[in-house]
Amino acid sequence: MNRIVQDGDLVEIIGRGNIHHIVKVKSGTEMHTHKGILRADEIIGNPWGSTIRSHNGNTFFVLQPALTDLIKNIPRASQILYPKDIGFILLNLAVGPGKRVIEAGTGSGALTTALAYAVGEAGRVYSYDNRREIQQKAIENLKRVELDSRVEFILKDIAGGFDQKEVDCIFLDVPNAYDYLKQAKDALISGGFFGCLLPTANQVMLLLKEMNIHKFGFIEVCEVLIRYYRTEPDRFRPVDRMIGHTGFLIFGRNLIAEDQNPDWNEQTESNTEI
Amino acid sequence: MNRIVQDGDLVEIIGRGNIHHIVKVKSGTEMHTHKGILRADEIIGNPWGSTIRSHNGNTFFVLQPALTDLIKNIPRASQILYPKDIGFILLNLAVGPGKRVIEAGTGSGALTTALAYAVGEAGRVYSYDNRREIQQKAIENLKRVELDSRVEFILKDIAGGFDQKEVDCIFLDVPNAYDYLKQAKDALISGGFFGCLLPTANQVMLLLKEMNIHKFGFIEVCEVLIRYYRTEPDRFRPVDRMIGHTGFLIFGRNLIAEDQNPDWNEQTESNTEI
Amino acid sequence: MNRIVQDGDLVEIIGRGNIHHIVKVKSGTEMHTHKGILRADEIIGNPWGSTIRSHNGNTFFVLQPALTDLIKNIPRASQILYPKDIGFILLNLAVGPGKRVIEAGTGSGALTTALAYAVGEAGRVYSYDNRREIQQKAIENLKRVELDSRVEFILKDIAGGFDQKEVDCIFLDVPNAYDYLKQAKDALISGGFFGCLLPTANQVMLLLKEMNIHKFGFIEVCEVLIRYYRTEPDRFRPVDRMIGHTGFLIFGRNLIAEDQNPDWNEQTESNTEI
Amino acid sequence: MNRIVQDGDLVEIIGRGNIHHIVKVKSGTEMHTHKGILRADEIIGNPWGSTIRSHNGNTFFVLQPALTDLIKNIPRASQILYPKDIGFILLNLAVGPGKRVIEAGTGSGALTTALAYAVGEAGRVYSYDNRREIQQKAIENLKRVELDSRVEFILKDIAGGFDQKEVDCIFLDVPNAYDYLKQAKDALISGGFFGCLLPTANQVMLLLKEMNIHKFGFIEVCEVLIRYYRTEPDRFRPVDRMIGHTGFLIFGRNLIAEDQNPDWNEQTESNTEI
Repeated sequence: MNRIVQDGDLVEIIGRGNIHHIVKVKSGTEMHTHKGILRADEIIGNPWGSTIRSHNGNTFFVLQPALTDLIKNIPRASQILYPKDIGFILLNLAVGPGKRVIEAGTGSGALTTALAYAVGEAGRVYSYDNRREIQQKAIENLKRVELDSRVEFILKDIAGGFDQKEVDCIFLDVPNAYDYLKQAKDALISGGFFGCLLPTANQVMLLLKEMNIHKFGFIEVCEVLIRYYRTEPDRFRPVDRMIGHTGFLIFGRNLIAEDQNPDWNEQTESNTEI
Repeated sequence: MNRIVQDGDLVEIIGRGNIHHIVKVKSGTEMHTHKGILRADEIIGNPWGSTIRSHNGNTFFVLQPALTDLIKNIPRASQILYPKDIGFILLNLAVGPGKRVIEAGTGSGALTTALAYAVGEAGRVYSYDNRREIQQKAIENLKRVELDSRVEFILKDIAGGFDQKEVDCIFLDVPNAYDYLKQAKDALISGGFFGCLLPTANQVMLLLKEMNIHKFGFIEVCEVLIRYYRTEPDRFRPVDRMIGHTGFLIFGRNLIAEDQNPDWNEQTESNTEI
Repeated sequence: MNRIVQDGDLVEIIGRGNIHHIVKVKSGTEMHTHKGILRADEIIGNPWGSTIRSHNGNTFFVLQPALTDLIKNIPRASQILYPKDIGFILLNLAVGPGKRVIEAGTGSGALTTALAYAVGEAGRVYSYDNRREIQQKAIENLKRVELDSRVEFILKDIAGGFDQKEVDCIFLDVPNAYDYLKQAKDALISGGFFGCLLPTANQVMLLLKEMNIHKFGFIEVCEVLIRYYRTEPDRFRPVDRMIGHTGFLIFGRNLIAEDQNPDWNEQTESNTEI
Repeated sequence: MNRIVQDGDLVEIIGRGNIHHIVKVKSGTEMHTHKGILRADEIIGNPWGSTIRSHNGNTFFVLQPALTDLIKNIPRASQILYPKDIGFILLNLAVGPGKRVIEAGTGSGALTTALAYAVGEAGRVYSYDNRREIQQKAIENLKRVELDSRVEFILKDIAGGFDQKEVDCIFLDVPNAYDYLKQAKDALISGGFFGCLLPTANQVMLLLKEMNIHKFGFIEVCEVLIRYYRTEPDRFRPVDRMIGHTGFLIFGRNLIAEDQNPDWNEQTESNTEI
């Protein structure tokens, strides 16, 4: 990566009060903030990590956009997935360069952004939603961060099945995920990775029953909790409030198994007891 | 990815009792387990996710290796990083296809494995350790999972500095990380991502002081806690024991700042209060 | 309290390796431990908090028994409640001097011990169990710690109702607590405090439905998590493992309400959102 | 306890929106709320747990005051201790009927309230603060909940020592608790229980060093985290936000030990590893 901001780069501008803007700098344009006007031509040519000043003297830092901020700054049409969950999802689904991934629903595109980032130019994200307006907003969000070329947005009710076959993994972020396990199984490579986020315990119980029926195995259910700390070295302590819950994460593998196996569950249980 | 196991594939074999083996299947060879002998030629040609039987009739699942299992199954010469931390690290350091990443120390190669996986063929991981034997073991571990071609292992005391310039991010997993911030800054692109794992609060306090001195900003300190649940839908509950602590994670950005700025810290504080 | 150990006192003896013994010291007797023999007459007359030596020279501390240790040292016939939950239960049920309290089941007597301690001489604990052998063991446990005079043990299936009326609070530690809410309501003073511990989410859901039907209000459901830290000041950090789950705690008040009230639940919801 | 509200009783009135009032009902008086006027004479004579209506038709529940609400409803002159911590403190310090307890500082009187409740008529709480105005406010708070007769408020800088000898336990809720361990030791019975709440890790480290110097042993450091759940049985899930931190709790015992003992710390370490 170039050490100097170029015309056309995606830039994260951070001003006092921790106000973040992620924008594409275009020579000749201006950016209006609560703390004054920034001229693109004063940003271009500076090294990343340096400071610039607005017309009225306020300081801003110019940074390469953080992936976590790309996710958090997404204009929301619906509830978004948090970085705390997304990092763990990517790892557990083994999302990496070249992978083919299905997600449903698209929502605001927070997870879509992270998936597109992780699969790279050689990979492919297939993102399903049946709400035209919400998906349109997500397409704009992905364009804004220049990751839209890696994503195929599909406007469709997934009850009718997915259009792809043998994808490496599928992530469902829909309330009634348990209704679509046959569809997921049909689209997923055998052995492939399945993941799901559900807010309530009731939904998880229904999903677990369906996962057993549809021969998903090596199932794990968990929650990710992040505890932040204050960063003053002389007063080191956790922050006062934390996120108590976003959702339960459920992971499993798409297995091929003889139906008669009487000890299916026991055999494919993940051992999460420490 | 091919739907059928090929000669030479890396395969994860899981038998009853949740016993995992990650091996390369080579036609003509055998694999000896506690539950009997498996012949490679009976594995090759099966679809992923299917079951095979050992010579004495025990069932095993044949799966694409999970990234989390690649990490957890690493033969350990030292304490390893856990998947719970690694997912969050990759996301916060924006490690993705094509990135150039430094890590120190190499240790057993758990994080190295995940970094190599995430940067893909186009990226590069520079992994430092000054303990020859431990690094040699890590090299073997990376070879075993066929990710060694993406990693440059460097046997060197990082007190003498890193050999690279302008890498996208650096992760330090050494007890006295606070002693190497000048070296990190010299190797990191301006604006780049810095991360660190430290087990004790005392170490974090020292690091925070040094990060302020060396103009790392937008600092965040946190812990990742994962709560696993039992997967029986009729008895849904968290598991009895959980991992209480592995380490504190510290993240920051490499800034270029005027030394006179009196409100440096206030300006570059991340707002982690919910 | 006397500063000096008296003949007949209940004493907590702690030897190396954190081995605890809670015993009544009686002049003329001996106590055999893994680290040698202790003579009661060498304990009597020493101040609390001092050390004594066994016949073979090992050091032991002589202490007033801690309430938490009284609870943890109970010989177990069944799963016990942990101090982490008990402290919060006592506070939420407002158990204090002079209160009349019902608990079911008795179990090993861990909660019974804490309740008996907290209600004092003027209070009364009614402890129900229908397993003769288990309750007999609990009676011995309470005798051992000299709190049995405050407890009435009742061997009875609570399906048949409780023998008391208008007690201040009731705590149910039985798997199918949701089956006994009518019985609880009949024994509890109107407005009184109801509490329950249940291991699984499924049980909690059933209980919540029954609590609504039986007009228990101001319901709260929570879990208590304790994070312990290592106590070396130069290596301050959480311990590696923690208890991930014992059970969900459910609290509510016994209300008298007009059946027609259409917004019953909304009206009596506790606001636990921070 | 009487089943019917009497003239002069302390009553908790809860109206829609979870608005709590804890007041003494006196015949002939009125109580003005945001949801209308309540007449004491309409409250008196009703059973606890029943509903009354304000002059303009809003419903209120009439309840025995919950100890947790007595604590939470205290008008605050300073940061208060939370019920989550208080329950665990009472249990670990073995505060019960008849105990003599010192606390410093008084603060708003939240812990004072719980201590006074738990020690009963036969016990005694000695509460120190050197800020006249704050302590005066606490005295009023204790009077309001009719527990002031069990508390001796002392306006004094504890650097000069406590006035009592051989109390059963001491709890310090002052920022520089580590400065007063000699004073604590002088007032505490040998073997007695010491407790402390400190917000930052830095303070805990200083305290741990001083506790070792002053021969406090069997030290435990922990945090109490409470996870609340939403109470709708069909949407069972943790609440979105939780309290991330109030303070670290530190407990220890006042020991008498030979100064030469080279393995003091090892000998008196509590084993909190699970």
